[in-house]
Amino acid sequence: VWKVSLDQDGTKSMAKTNTPRVAVIMGSDSDWSVMKNCVEALKEFGVSCEVRILSAHRSPEQTAEFASRAQENGFQVLIAAAGMAAHLAGVIAAHASLPVIGVPMASGALQGVDALLSTVQMPPGIPVATMGIGPAGAKNAAVLAVQILALSDKSLQKKLRQHKTDLRQSVERKNTELQNQLV
Amino acid sequence: VWKVSLDQDGTKSMAKTNTPRVAVIMGSDSDWSVMKNCVEALKEFGVSCEVRILSAHRSPEQTAEFASRAQENGFQVLIAAAGMAAHLAGVIAAHASLPVIGVPMASGALQGVDALLSTVQMPPGIPVATMGIGPAGAKNAAVLAVQILALSDKSLQKKLRQHKTDLRQSVERKNTELQNQLV
Amino acid sequence: VWKVSLDQDGTKSMAKTNTPRVAVIMGSDSDWSVMKNCVEALKEFGVSCEVRILSAHRSPEQTAEFASRAQENGFQVLIAAAGMAAHLAGVIAAHASLPVIGVPMASGALQGVDALLSTVQMPPGIPVATMGIGPAGAKNAAVLAVQILALSDKSLQKKLRQHKTDLRQSVERKNTELQNQLV
Amino acid sequence: VWKVSLDQDGTKSMAKTNTPRVAVIMGSDSDWSVMKNCVEALKEFGVSCEVRILSAHRSPEQTAEFASRAQENGFQVLIAAAGMAAHLAGVIAAHASLPVIGVPMASGALQGVDALLSTVQMPPGIPVATMGIGPAGAKNAAVLAVQILALSDKSLQKKLRQHKTDLRQSVERKNTELQNQLV
Amino acid sequence: VWKVSLDQDGTKSMAKTNTPRVAVIMGSDSDWSVMKNCVEALKEFGVSCEVRILSAHRSPEQTAEFASRAQENGFQVLIAAAGMAAHLAGVIAAHASLPVIGVPMASGALQGVDALLSTVQMPPGIPVATMGIGPAGAKNAAVLAVQILALSDKSLQKKLRQHKTDLRQSVERKNTELQNQLV
Amino acid sequence: VWKVSLDQDGTKSMAKTNTPRVAVIMGSDSDWSVMKNCVEALKEFGVSCEVRILSAHRSPEQTAEFASRAQENGFQVLIAAAGMAAHLAGVIAAHASLPVIGVPMASGALQGVDALLSTVQMPPGIPVATMGIGPAGAKNAAVLAVQILALSDKSLQKKLRQHKTDLRQSVERKNTELQNQLV
Amino acid sequence: VWKVSLDQDGTKSMAKTNTPRVAVIMGSDSDWSVMKNCVEALKEFGVSCEVRILSAHRSPEQTAEFASRAQENGFQVLIAAAGMAAHLAGVIAAHASLPVIGVPMASGALQGVDALLSTVQMPPGIPVATMGIGPAGAKNAAVLAVQILALSDKSLQKKLRQHKTDLRQSVERKNTELQNQLV
Amino acid sequence: VWKVSLDQDGTKSMAKTNTPRVAVIMGSDSDWSVMKNCVEALKEFGVSCEVRILSAHRSPEQTAEFASRAQENGFQVLIAAAGMAAHLAGVIAAHASLPVIGVPMASGALQGVDALLSTVQMPPGIPVATMGIGPAGAKNAAVLAVQILALSDKSLQKKLRQHKTDLRQSVERKNTELQNQLV
Repeated sequence: VWKVSLDQDGTKSMAKTNTPRVAVIMGSDSDWSVMKNCVEALKEFGVSCEVRILSAHRSPEQTAEFASRAQENGFQVLIAAAGMAAHLAGVIAAHASLPVIGVPMASGALQGVDALLSTVQMPPGIPVATMGIGPAGAKNAAVLAVQILALSDKSLQKKLRQHKTDLRQSVERKNTELQNQLV
Repeated sequence: VWKVSLDQDGTKSMAKTNTPRVAVIMGSDSDWSVMKNCVEALKEFGVSCEVRILSAHRSPEQTAEFASRAQENGFQVLIAAAGMAAHLAGVIAAHASLPVIGVPMASGALQGVDALLSTVQMPPGIPVATMGIGPAGAKNAAVLAVQILALSDKSLQKKLRQHKTDLRQSVERKNTELQNQLV
Repeated sequence: VWKVSLDQDGTKSMAKTNTPRVAVIMGSDSDWSVMKNCVEALKEFGVSCEVRILSAHRSPEQTAEFASRAQENGFQVLIAAAGMAAHLAGVIAAHASLPVIGVPMASGALQGVDALLSTVQMPPGIPVATMGIGPAGAKNAAVLAVQILALSDKSLQKKLRQHKTDLRQSVERKNTELQNQLV
Repeated sequence: VWKVSLDQDGTKSMAKTNTPRVAVIMGSDSDWSVMKNCVEALKEFGVSCEVRILSAHRSPEQTAEFASRAQENGFQVLIAAAGMAAHLAGVIAAHASLPVIGVPMASGALQGVDALLSTVQMPPGIPVATMGIGPAGAKNAAVLAVQILALSDKSLQKKLRQHKTDLRQSVERKNTELQNQLV
Repeated sequence: VWKVSLDQDGTKSMAKTNTPRVAVIMGSDSDWSVMKNCVEALKEFGVSCEVRILSAHRSPEQTAEFASRAQENGFQVLIAAAGMAAHLAGVIAAHASLPVIGVPMASGALQGVDALLSTVQMPPGIPVATMGIGPAGAKNAAVLAVQILALSDKSLQKKLRQHKTDLRQSVERKNTELQNQLV
Repeated sequence: VWKVSLDQDGTKSMAKTNTPRVAVIMGSDSDWSVMKNCVEALKEFGVSCEVRILSAHRSPEQTAEFASRAQENGFQVLIAAAGMAAHLAGVIAAHASLPVIGVPMASGALQGVDALLSTVQMPPGIPVATMGIGPAGAKNAAVLAVQILALSDKSLQKKLRQHKTDLRQSVERKNTELQNQLV
Repeated sequence: VWKVSLDQDGTKSMAKTNTPRVAVIMGSDSDWSVMKNCVEALKEFGVSCEVRILSAHRSPEQTAEFASRAQENGFQVLIAAAGMAAHLAGVIAAHASLPVIGVPMASGALQGVDALLSTVQMPPGIPVATMGIGPAGAKNAAVLAVQILALSDKSLQKKLRQHKTDLRQSVERKNTELQNQLV
Repeated sequence: VWKVSLDQDGTKSMAKTNTPRVAVIMGSDSDWSVMKNCVEALKEFGVSCEVRILSAHRSPEQTAEFASRAQENGFQVLIAAAGMAAHLAGVIAAHASLPVIGVPMASGALQGVDALLSTVQMPPGIPVATMGIGPAGAKNAAVLAVQILALSDKSLQKKLRQHKTDLRQSVERKNTELQNQLV
């Protein structure tokens, strides 16, 4: 379990006090099973985050409000996940000047191609840092957020170096397991 | 040339007084050469319209404001054209309950596939009536707007019947020209 | 269950008397499980509709006949759902001057990409208001039909405003549930 | 130039009397520059044809009428070329029991992918013999028509054998030219 | 079960004597579950056929031999089904001057898009009459073969007219069932 | 012209002293005409950058070396642009823990779809912040870099707020020009 | 089971002594179920191989090291399998001058289209011999490796001739089984 | 200019005597402008080759004959380039046991996507070593052929090491030019 505090409006934020803050926004509660990968990766780095459901289409004013106030509310990186005509990250990027990371969800008949293009093909001036479709993208959104926050946080830099070592060692361990399996 | 009146904010509206009103919104002035087909088709039906540039990403508040007030400002159908990660129609549909017609523009490397999917793959509850990519879609947006307005306008119904006859006769005329060419 | 009356030819129409009428046409009975979402959404708005199976390819004359007479038979909006080389909406639009809404079905190996392109890429002069692929598109066809009918129906306008509120509240409720789950 | 006779309705048919007859139908006069390849190939085989512009969407009744009567009017193979949401071949196949050959045109932003899928992905029971996109498909429609007619025409069988020899010799001749160029 | 006779090489042909003959060639035995739809449709029309597995890549000489001799062996239409880089129909068309119908199979990761393009995009001079991907295409290959054979067979023409009636009646029956279900 | 200083290896860096530093890496000199948009946007924000050609495939060791040392050499954000099987950003991300922004170039037959997928679909643990294809993506890479650097730079935050204002005013100005044109 | 010997670093190599050697590299242990097809096909030809997990992104230095030394370590052909933004084969080809065969894996939402394009669209000068997506490609990588090694190995040439015979006979056997099934 | 000798059938082969030999086969003379890149790259490595036009569809017997005899005629690597439904490499691979390298040409409306899939998606047992679409693939076919031949040719190994150095130096030179341009 992770630490949770209450925001003014009842939203619970999972945070250690005084750490950088990331928002993980989803367009639908059905995205949670995928975006859990993002939140768990943030936790592994000890980066606090807040998880929220906000919809570009169904709660556009709340989304605009959230994005417009994100910086003054202490957020530093905004992660937005949505499927199909995935406008969520783009709408947030339109209202905020913080780095916005978009994660395309593989929902619907087109399996995320629509969400990828709707997220990545932004017009000049309004970038969305787009991740791959689905769980890999969800995890990578967390790592990118950490890389951004690490620019002014030595302890995160150290964790990122360890993360690279862990990735390498995981490959080596799996290779060893495969070799054993081949005997 | 067509009749133009001044709105409060200096936007000129091309309208006959007391007729139904359509808004033609473009995400960029580079869409005008294509969307001119839409405005001209509306004029042929005698339907007044207002043309505006509004961007889901660069002027999101004005866009939301426009969409939220469109109905009370007397609009009945909203046409939105945009390219790439084309969020314009979707954002307008999020704020308005009027019928929203989306026209994907063929800008950028993907030639409108991105704009098509970003426009059509809307989540349940927030429809965008999506047209084909480019000039054909631009013209069809006008015809669909007329078909919608015609439900309560007998004179437009008559014009639509004439439109169908014109289309048929144009095919016949082109066939005759081809036959002559073949002699 | 909902109220059903008998048409002349035995087709049952689900309608309150004296309300605007929508036709929901499917190319195949296998589309019903998806298009049920459309009919149910119409019912929630209290808009009467008639459901029919008509095929552009297997019963082309009946389809043309239906479309040609749709207006005089009192229909105001025609919704057509089909998969693969989905010509149904296009054929209906060729014969009728009413607004035609097309819903691409995700049947067959291409999962609806074929149906989407066959429905949306209409030639100039004959629009089809195309929805997203599958259930989301099915529901949105209903909402668009209601938005069109609402132009001359104050009570539907009120329901659409409520619909927007419902969508927003549903997002908020799901957000609250997620927050509770995260504790 | 080729021989032309007048049909009842003024359409000129390019035919030798008493030979099998092919119809080449185009959705638009802009398809002619491509479909000329088809007509010229038919002429090389001495197969008479009639060229017509008919639109599935703009002249649907004439198209249905033409297709319904094609067999009694002496046609044996129907070739239909169209672009975008290319319904022409499908609509003709819905009304006729003759072999229908579809040629997708590369018009519009999607360069014929839409036309290919709209033509080939027909539902069970109503085939369209689909050719490749553009000029190659146009020529092949003619060759397929000849192959079909040749089943009951020995002289066409002989020409098809010669056609295969010509193709081979053309490859050999081009190879020789290339070798000379390489010296 | 259907009537089977023995060919010289042990291949059994399902045929009534003295009727036109169709070959149904598959690249792999795994295509049989789909191509059964083709053979059954041919049987319903009383058209004899022979089913064979031949591979463009694994038994290229037998395939070339078969195609080269198909006409002299009394075949009139050749149907070829294959998946992935589906060369089977193209290779057969290269060696035979009979009408060749190609059916793309939905095998492998790309679900038939590869097979469709490999089958349909033939170079000028060598057509393959391409059907839709999978079971619908398999059935339509049979119907197209019948349409071709019917050009010189009045009884097949009659069956095709009945086929069109059956398709229409099947739609009407399904519509009636749906109406009953809706009560 | 902008200020240039000499690095140890002769590479010139365009930088104001003591400001954050961005590297703009291109896989080929042919990418320069597009990536100039990136460098110019960085300059407008007063952010120094270094431009280099490095290839994941042709100079892999230099690329790995550059990426591995980027942080100790004082870089904070790495922008990598490449076309086709665009591995450049991925390879840099494999060796560096800094935020890596990838810009897919529209070179070759597939017009950037290959580059987009090769850049964005990274495995879990190694993110690349992917921008849209071509010039829009090039400019957005700069803006995202600025947004990242602004997290610890108040003056950049101010410039980003101005940037949003500029975007909005540019839309308004273009709207005004359009209105004038329509009179 | 097959013979395994120990390499210096504990990796087990499946080899007959004194035979040519192939490396089968996978980006992830999840690729093993597919790449087993490759290893088994190599074994059937009696070609020794070594299987390893190495990641272009998670263990880039080991991958570069392995590729750089592959030739001096006695490898002759390198097979690399990866999914998504599949850089593995490309990175190996950047560091080695041996023939590199790439096998795209069908992992993730895009089912291998991303892996195919990331593997095949290499820049001029650095080829990757790309196979089809998934199991067919895995097996074919082995056959291509054998074809390459056979250029200087008469016994492998003989086995390849037998392989072609086996393929043909397998087709014939399946045809016979089908004929029996049809009785 | 390069050395040319005459083959028995008048085909000129560009070769130094006693060196390994490569065949470069094209489906059409229109492929020559692209495949010249392949032949020139082979020449730079001093590898002799023979260029021929052979068509899988228009001269299938010659193609089969050529492929069947390629090994006994002293060829070691076969390169095949074709566009659209590109069967050439696959047909050659069906008849030969030599390594076959396929180069998809970007001809026709689909710009080489069809040729890529038709070339790469080969069934198990019959590999085609597929290169990227167009000129890059043409050049890479040559390099891969050299890598294959180099396995038993020390002088080619040396040239390949030089090739890697040249690639790296070319990148460095272009970087230097860019730096000069930026001053």
